[in-house]
Amino acid sequence: IPLNRASRCSCIKISHQPVNPKSIKKLEVIPKSTSCPSLEVIATMKNNGEKICLDPETEMIKNILKAFNKKRSKRSQTPREA
Amino acid sequence: IPLNRASRCSCIKISHQPVNPKSIKKLEVIPKSTSCPSLEVIATMKNNGEKICLDPETEMIKNILKAFNKKRSKRSQTPREA
Repeated sequence: IPLNRASRCSCIKISHQPVNPKSIKKLEVIPKSTSCPSLEVIATMKNNGEKICLDPETEMIKNILKAFNKKRSKRSQTPREA
Repeated sequence: IPLNRASRCSCIKISHQPVNPKSIKKLEVIPKSTSCPSLEVIATMKNNGEKICLDPETEMIKNILKAFNKKRSKRSQTPREA
């Protein structure tokens, strides 16, 4: 449950439930800063846009990132030009 | 340089310049989807809020995440309760 940035940290509660990487629309990683002493990881879910704070300590984050890479198809690496 | 989501992908150009993890305010990881066939990694910079698209293929992302973890101080892992 992320809060407004004005209130120190974005996360007030961290979910320890496993999250299916396929259900994640976007993953935000916010390094610790003067406004928040913890590294924060926020997953935005595909189905309802719900934001869930994940525990950066767990292997889950690594697994999610790994799954993201796996899901990527073999394609040209050429970026679209502006 | 991320674009509006309406235009297929967020990134139209990917920076291959090394980025200092300490200069990053937020890192967004967007898995490939029906609207964009590529995994996208967008770094928001601390100084000017500029958004830079990074190449998810490189080790840089891993190094950034590693640096984020290193920067985290030894602190209580107890999340703030809502």
